[in-house]
Amino acid sequence: MKIYDVEGFPNPARIRIALAEKGASDQVAFVKVDVMGGEHRTPQFKAKNPDATVPCLELDDGTCISHCTAITEYLDQHLPGTVLCGNTAKERALVSMMNLRAEGGLLNAVGDYFHHATPGLGPDLETDQNKEWGMKRRAKSQETMAYLDGVLADNDWLAGESFSMADITAFAGLAFADLAKVDIPAELTNLSSWRARVAQRPSMAV
Amino acid sequence: MKIYDVEGFPNPARIRIALAEKGASDQVAFVKVDVMGGEHRTPQFKAKNPDATVPCLELDDGTCISHCTAITEYLDQHLPGTVLCGNTAKERALVSMMNLRAEGGLLNAVGDYFHHATPGLGPDLETDQNKEWGMKRRAKSQETMAYLDGVLADNDWLAGESFSMADITAFAGLAFADLAKVDIPAELTNLSSWRARVAQRPSMAV
Repeated sequence: MKIYDVEGFPNPARIRIALAEKGASDQVAFVKVDVMGGEHRTPQFKAKNPDATVPCLELDDGTCISHCTAITEYLDQHLPGTVLCGNTAKERALVSMMNLRAEGGLLNAVGDYFHHATPGLGPDLETDQNKEWGMKRRAKSQETMAYLDGVLADNDWLAGESFSMADITAFAGLAFADLAKVDIPAELTNLSSWRARVAQRPSMAV
Repeated sequence: MKIYDVEGFPNPARIRIALAEKGASDQVAFVKVDVMGGEHRTPQFKAKNPDATVPCLELDDGTCISHCTAITEYLDQHLPGTVLCGNTAKERALVSMMNLRAEGGLLNAVGDYFHHATPGLGPDLETDQNKEWGMKRRAKSQETMAYLDGVLADNDWLAGESFSMADITAFAGLAFADLAKVDIPAELTNLSSWRARVAQRPSMAV
């Protein structure tokens, strides 16, 4: 398997963390994509991933899978080790739902703020900004932080009784918030103590 | 099981179609939500679904699942019958990826146009519009139609060799496009013939 990505970006981190949780980081060849140089928007890359995003997983038969959720689900089912997406239909549904809330409401919301209402990746790449939309998404990301804090008042993890893909997504979302200088309100102590616990997992050193 | 929804809306249709494909429409009690009256934004409803969206699935133990993808995956795993989300890890990943492309790039893009750049559900509910954003999303929805047409040039279905959740999502997206008066370009003949084939499935009569 190959993963086309770039180190240090929030979405690629989700897959690197998932692989580390599965104990399988060495089973994948990482291929660096020059995102700052726009390589992800070239016809060559879009033939693999028409979404023009990283990461993209390429299987040994040439099949390419984009979208972190689809990639994580594939790795979780394909590889042995810690289960990240739930075992039963109900567990899977809860992980899927909470992952979507963390992704849409936090990680992607911060991303929309970053790309639309800040200099983002610079003027060559950010050619389609909408500041008003970006600011609304910034507010949404902080609403979602408060929502997640409420979930964590009664639960150790975001979806069910063990660490899951939803925790990875929210953790990457908070890392993106740091990068984009979106404040994590100090009163959200459940969220900050959860974050400190997640940060101690060996997989987070990737 | 209960499903909180409203008939005739695009996202609720996705679940009604999935249930019909599973031959399980009679295993669910449908509870009507007065979306036009804002019931989905009341504290009572948000206690079940903080996303304030329909549909929402309530299991017999009281667990509530929102987001059509999570609901469809649950129903697909929980119920016998036609498999909608793939059997193998690779099939599941392709369905998940294509479902996300159809959802983010078509159904949700049309929805963003409808809610942001048209009167949408009316002035009482559309209090947060951004016309420029809505128009960009309209353009995105038509780009996605062209992308899907290309996929269908070489494939009978959007993800793998059988009808799947991705087809349901794209079909609902085109229905939403009709409702929102987003043109489906006439030259996309692969898309229109796929749509005609999907429309003939008995599940589509829901």
